[in-house]
Amino acid sequence: MGLFSKDIKTMDDLFVHTLRDIYYAENQILKALPDMIEKATNRELTQGFKQHLEETKNHVVRLDQVFRLHGTQAKGVDCPAIDGIIEEADEIAGEVDDKDVLDAALIAAAQAVEHYEITRYGTLVTWARQLGRDDCAVLLQKTLDEEKATDKKLTTLAESKVNRKAAG
Amino acid sequence: MGLFSKDIKTMDDLFVHTLRDIYYAENQILKALPDMIEKATNRELTQGFKQHLEETKNHVVRLDQVFRLHGTQAKGVDCPAIDGIIEEADEIAGEVDDKDVLDAALIAAAQAVEHYEITRYGTLVTWARQLGRDDCAVLLQKTLDEEKATDKKLTTLAESKVNRKAAG
Repeated sequence: MGLFSKDIKTMDDLFVHTLRDIYYAENQILKALPDMIEKATNRELTQGFKQHLEETKNHVVRLDQVFRLHGTQAKGVDCPAIDGIIEEADEIAGEVDDKDVLDAALIAAAQAVEHYEITRYGTLVTWARQLGRDDCAVLLQKTLDEEKATDKKLTTLAESKVNRKAAG
Repeated sequence: MGLFSKDIKTMDDLFVHTLRDIYYAENQILKALPDMIEKATNRELTQGFKQHLEETKNHVVRLDQVFRLHGTQAKGVDCPAIDGIIEEADEIAGEVDDKDVLDAALIAAAQAVEHYEITRYGTLVTWARQLGRDDCAVLLQKTLDEEKATDKKLTTLAESKVNRKAAG
């Protein structure tokens, strides 16, 4: 990004920039998930993370399609937000010993990641529609729906099992 | 945080750690909002940010109450997630020239902040209830409801006015 020129001039530029932001973020999440799978103890949580790893691979493929439809090169830009969220997840996981408490901390960390994705995809869907790119909006909406479903599943798992065990 | 000992041993420790995380985050948001108010052009957006600044001051007061109820000293811990989210907001705002596009970018940035708060307060409410601290849960739920309302207002403003102007 230029230090002396302002690179984002139109809504279309802003849309592409944010696509690149979430493209970088999805790729960082792909790298982070195996470690979370390894740290989790609850079987449903491990399964959930594994399933989300597969979904995340698909989200990257879908972003590739959106870039192609838009006629723009698929690439990432640094995204300090996801870097910070993942750094915080690593830090907290390193501070917890008890495996049930660690599961609760991992769920909270994963939900922070999901909410970042939900806000970015929500914005991208709205912007795509505004720009008359319904073809892109449809693909982005699919991922948004999956991220919301994952967040909901994590809440249910936390409330029904993990937190009770960790607090008991 | 200790490098050689694991400081979070129980769900109660995890709850307090996350309270401190959001306490730091709210204080960083308090510092960031005046800059966002200054950069925004749309009158409703400026008003919305100003109102949220007042709400945020109140969220800090409410956290002070939660710390007091819990019998723990009110203090923050570093929160790389909110630092990253705010850093990204600053970066993107610095890249946009057109004032309507900037308004759209500011809304997206503010919604990333809101979603971070929504996930953290959502987790804290659940944990407080699990720990039998309904007194803390009631206060945290009030803030959660306000963060969700702010996020919804930003979506409405973006969809009804700001994005159309920015794309036009």
